[in-house]
Amino acid sequence: MIDLRSDVMTLPSEGMLHAMTTAQVGDEQRREDPTVLALEDDLTGLLGQEAAVFVPSATMANQIATLCQVARGQEIVGERHSHMFRYEAGGPAFLAGAVVTGLAGSAGVFTGDQVRDVAQIRDSEHRPRTALALVENTHNASGGRVWPLEALDGLYDTCAELGLAVHIDGARLFNAAAALDVPPARITERARTVAVCFSKGLGCPAGAALVGRSDVLAPARRIRQMLGGSLRQAGVLAGAARYALRHNLTRLADDHGHARTLAGLLAEAGLPVDPAQVETNFVLLDLASLGLDRDTALARLRSHGVLWSNAHHPTVVRAVTHLGHSVVDVHNAASRTVQALTTG
Amino acid sequence: MIDLRSDVMTLPSEGMLHAMTTAQVGDEQRREDPTVLALEDDLTGLLGQEAAVFVPSATMANQIATLCQVARGQEIVGERHSHMFRYEAGGPAFLAGAVVTGLAGSAGVFTGDQVRDVAQIRDSEHRPRTALALVENTHNASGGRVWPLEALDGLYDTCAELGLAVHIDGARLFNAAAALDVPPARITERARTVAVCFSKGLGCPAGAALVGRSDVLAPARRIRQMLGGSLRQAGVLAGAARYALRHNLTRLADDHGHARTLAGLLAEAGLPVDPAQVETNFVLLDLASLGLDRDTALARLRSHGVLWSNAHHPTVVRAVTHLGHSVVDVHNAASRTVQALTTG
Amino acid sequence: MIDLRSDVMTLPSEGMLHAMTTAQVGDEQRREDPTVLALEDDLTGLLGQEAAVFVPSATMANQIATLCQVARGQEIVGERHSHMFRYEAGGPAFLAGAVVTGLAGSAGVFTGDQVRDVAQIRDSEHRPRTALALVENTHNASGGRVWPLEALDGLYDTCAELGLAVHIDGARLFNAAAALDVPPARITERARTVAVCFSKGLGCPAGAALVGRSDVLAPARRIRQMLGGSLRQAGVLAGAARYALRHNLTRLADDHGHARTLAGLLAEAGLPVDPAQVETNFVLLDLASLGLDRDTALARLRSHGVLWSNAHHPTVVRAVTHLGHSVVDVHNAASRTVQALTTG
Amino acid sequence: MIDLRSDVMTLPSEGMLHAMTTAQVGDEQRREDPTVLALEDDLTGLLGQEAAVFVPSATMANQIATLCQVARGQEIVGERHSHMFRYEAGGPAFLAGAVVTGLAGSAGVFTGDQVRDVAQIRDSEHRPRTALALVENTHNASGGRVWPLEALDGLYDTCAELGLAVHIDGARLFNAAAALDVPPARITERARTVAVCFSKGLGCPAGAALVGRSDVLAPARRIRQMLGGSLRQAGVLAGAARYALRHNLTRLADDHGHARTLAGLLAEAGLPVDPAQVETNFVLLDLASLGLDRDTALARLRSHGVLWSNAHHPTVVRAVTHLGHSVVDVHNAASRTVQALTTG
Repeated sequence: MIDLRSDVMTLPSEGMLHAMTTAQVGDEQRREDPTVLALEDDLTGLLGQEAAVFVPSATMANQIATLCQVARGQEIVGERHSHMFRYEAGGPAFLAGAVVTGLAGSAGVFTGDQVRDVAQIRDSEHRPRTALALVENTHNASGGRVWPLEALDGLYDTCAELGLAVHIDGARLFNAAAALDVPPARITERARTVAVCFSKGLGCPAGAALVGRSDVLAPARRIRQMLGGSLRQAGVLAGAARYALRHNLTRLADDHGHARTLAGLLAEAGLPVDPAQVETNFVLLDLASLGLDRDTALARLRSHGVLWSNAHHPTVVRAVTHLGHSVVDVHNAASRTVQALTTG
Repeated sequence: MIDLRSDVMTLPSEGMLHAMTTAQVGDEQRREDPTVLALEDDLTGLLGQEAAVFVPSATMANQIATLCQVARGQEIVGERHSHMFRYEAGGPAFLAGAVVTGLAGSAGVFTGDQVRDVAQIRDSEHRPRTALALVENTHNASGGRVWPLEALDGLYDTCAELGLAVHIDGARLFNAAAALDVPPARITERARTVAVCFSKGLGCPAGAALVGRSDVLAPARRIRQMLGGSLRQAGVLAGAARYALRHNLTRLADDHGHARTLAGLLAEAGLPVDPAQVETNFVLLDLASLGLDRDTALARLRSHGVLWSNAHHPTVVRAVTHLGHSVVDVHNAASRTVQALTTG
Repeated sequence: MIDLRSDVMTLPSEGMLHAMTTAQVGDEQRREDPTVLALEDDLTGLLGQEAAVFVPSATMANQIATLCQVARGQEIVGERHSHMFRYEAGGPAFLAGAVVTGLAGSAGVFTGDQVRDVAQIRDSEHRPRTALALVENTHNASGGRVWPLEALDGLYDTCAELGLAVHIDGARLFNAAAALDVPPARITERARTVAVCFSKGLGCPAGAALVGRSDVLAPARRIRQMLGGSLRQAGVLAGAARYALRHNLTRLADDHGHARTLAGLLAEAGLPVDPAQVETNFVLLDLASLGLDRDTALARLRSHGVLWSNAHHPTVVRAVTHLGHSVVDVHNAASRTVQALTTG
Repeated sequence: MIDLRSDVMTLPSEGMLHAMTTAQVGDEQRREDPTVLALEDDLTGLLGQEAAVFVPSATMANQIATLCQVARGQEIVGERHSHMFRYEAGGPAFLAGAVVTGLAGSAGVFTGDQVRDVAQIRDSEHRPRTALALVENTHNASGGRVWPLEALDGLYDTCAELGLAVHIDGARLFNAAAALDVPPARITERARTVAVCFSKGLGCPAGAALVGRSDVLAPARRIRQMLGGSLRQAGVLAGAARYALRHNLTRLADDHGHARTLAGLLAEAGLPVDPAQVETNFVLLDLASLGLDRDTALARLRSHGVLWSNAHHPTVVRAVTHLGHSVVDVHNAASRTVQALTTG
């Protein structure tokens, strides 16, 4: 079975497991875990920021970012299919009391003018004040799409002018950097906060971080404590993250190559896949023109030995490549997919 | 000075003041205020509902409706410029922790298909469940526009099919009923909850009500208590409301006639007003084509003896007719407006 | 029937009704209601504070005070039977997310040392920071008891030293001032915020105010808007309040005299009432020694033509005097009470 | 240096690290991690409950328990120095909007009568309804004290009668079971929910669980997702937990023996330690009679090669024994402590 459901399924490698068991650890709540401290140093350097807080998951990093920057009744604007808005159980509203305003994006990207149109930047007794713009990069729901640098720079400019902070939900930030072939800091250094995840293409079993300006993150550790995200010997997970940054970062480009290969093979075989939209490690396939409903399609794929999963749009399925897949897997996955969806 | 800023500016008439001072009153928290009890009876009959709770303002009625029907992290869908979403200080998110999802409407109206597109009606560990559809009727930000009955019926049908409750923000419900020439219950009887206001065209100094199904409103009085909306001898305000229902309801059609007259006179004079969009008591005038910014225009209007106010859109000003205006006022207001905006 | 259930039952007098109907009014949300503006002036002077906001009820004043001063997860300390803690539907926790820490008081009074014992005044990742001390004066649950000035001054001193703000829940503040024979400002001028109510002994049908430092109250009007407490022609209620401040303030001492008379008559008749504890307009009667359960006792009293009500303690009933009672009523109430509770 | 600051400082053993790296793992959010599933089975059996959810920390287990069982504005009653109330950053109020009512306990224990005195078990428009009783066992702030079984049974009886759920904060539950020499289920089977921690005396780097009735835990996984506690290959931590349950559970009695030894040696040397209060692995030493402030004492201890830490009470320091300490360490720690605190 070739499992293409998600890069969250990656299993820790031998090398990573060794790094976990040999990491120096201590009580992270007392700031005595040297591996966590070293990881935080790694991250501030890598992302051009001042401070970092290790957390169990990217969702927690996003929630803490919101709680640090958005007062109750204030507004976050972002693309309307953003993970924070649609896949985090309503957390920004539930936990932070934030007004969540979704903009209609194109491949996950929206413009400064769209923000300007809705932003309420003066105090008002009636209108919710806009506090934060959210950029998800790469953007999950649209198929791992990357924010072009000019679009991102334009958004930073508008937000600077309006006095709005920008949070990057970078659960797959390193995929975006690999696709653009730029250092991650090129994407993040103008953001006020950034969430990154080690449990997706980087291959860790768990772990993420919230990185950002020191003053903004001042309450972050107290909030993490309250949410239950303060671990003790967190170095066992931070050791995996440090290993991943050193061994699994540059190889993300291979996953992107695999996704392009897969998309090309499927498109050649006449399946409704657009290789031009494969910018990172996601391949979307829209079943609408095949006259197949999603459950049927996924079951057939499974019976042919390949696992795809639901994408955000109700007629679309998704394949995601990661370090668990070789080039042979990719070719096999392509032929099994073609068989499953064309022979009925 | 002719004040067209809003129908919230209406002053209580002699008859209404007399009704207030002669109303039988008692401790409303103990359900001993006969005038409040009678008003609640009036409203359930008028709106085809089972229960009613008197509250100080329509905003509180809307907030209690949300707290009664939307769990934290659940979603409300409604037109994106809805008063609840944009003019109640972020209350649905702040107080109820609700995910507020705005749909792009046309004259304040959206369709069942738009709801179907975004609604999440199955339980999910990741996605916020949709709990409530919000209809604002008449719709303030679009200029007092009325939901056509077919559009409303279509929305009720879709929501029934999806298992979604509908809340009517009827701050100007009676204007909608007058414009459609139907009994108010024709609009509200399929809703689960309805907010109505006595302090706008009906001319009361304060007071509103939340009306709806008994089971849904079971916690409403406790929530009202907590928010600070439980008064004692509330009959002094409920007396005004009962007076208004008996004396000021049918006359709302006059306000609509006045608004049409005003719009016609302005359009004849070449001002950018569209009489076809005047369905109730609002007249919108878009300054964009006049090359005037809003502050300048409002100041000129004031200096010519007529007060307009900001509308939702940044280039638009608004006039609202109400029981304080005679037909002479309307003609005078028209000529002053023409003078102010055309002679510079 | 002589109704001693509560001073919230007071009905507006002819003079007050006249004041309501002749008050100049305007749109209070635009700060155009002259009667509300005048009332706010009255209150800042009377209480030695800088700013005031008119609200529908004392509960709303208390909730806004909390939302202005206590961040989520911070702590309020106060007497454990305080109205805010026990009778406002959990509002401080529900709305403000405040940690509500109740101190064991004596007649509603606690000491600075008790505050010092529990207060957390340094930032901590683990412990909730203490933000506010709550003084309820007079204290409802203990029977309208008054904070002695030395106790209050001691608390102000400790709170000043610890950097804690003090909020006075003065729903019956003017009773406390009357009992102490001091100007109200003597009690409130060192507080950061004060809630006062017009709907109890002062005889208004509704209305209250939050009074305090200007900077603290900066967000108060926005919060009031969100809670639904911003009215339009609020002057009809503010007019009643201004009338009450001018006509019903000094007469509160009469209510206290009536309560003492009632308590004395009951004690003489051998009923378990302690006149020494009657400091304002409440009389408590503990049924425990009479072998009567509360429902039975209240029913018997009702059948003898006098209404008492439940007090906070489960074996105690309560009588409250107010402007609706003459000295004759008080004597009659005493004799009916004696008959009801002694003859079985 | 002998570090007695806390049993949270325990480091994973070789065997545990081996268990972590050889655990079978999968995507826990899809319920595909076999090690987590096996751990959940272990726990429901061990605690006499129906369902379990693995979480990163005991604090998260406590917060989810609250969010599952306590509606906003409802009340939790528990001992006033409980960890949930005083050391979780105000989480129950911040996250759940719960009214937190602290009872004065004796060695962390309170009675059913104390609950009965404060519990509000009928619906009321004014009073916060009591929803949950919290038992912390062992009780941290009082020095690792154990709830006697009769006291616990009495509490369960009262809560059953009042219709209140009981949550056990069992961060050190297995210490309580060891001290009482009963199976853990003897303590927990009548609770509705139980939090347990693997990161204290059991020696894991991180990990905890919420265990309880299936219906109560129905929303727990969605809430965990929202808080950011849903990991992917959580089996690496669950593997440590399973190892701990098999290898480190019975040895907790050794830690208790070490603590008694330490306390005995210190008491013999005349230090203010009461061995009778050492029921588990905590030793408290009250500096008040030594005329030493806490910072000075801790610094002196450190300079003598032994680390103690602050206890809850401001004049008390604390030593905690765990699997990292041999009997030799304990004797050395005793003599260093005596030297540090008696020779000045």
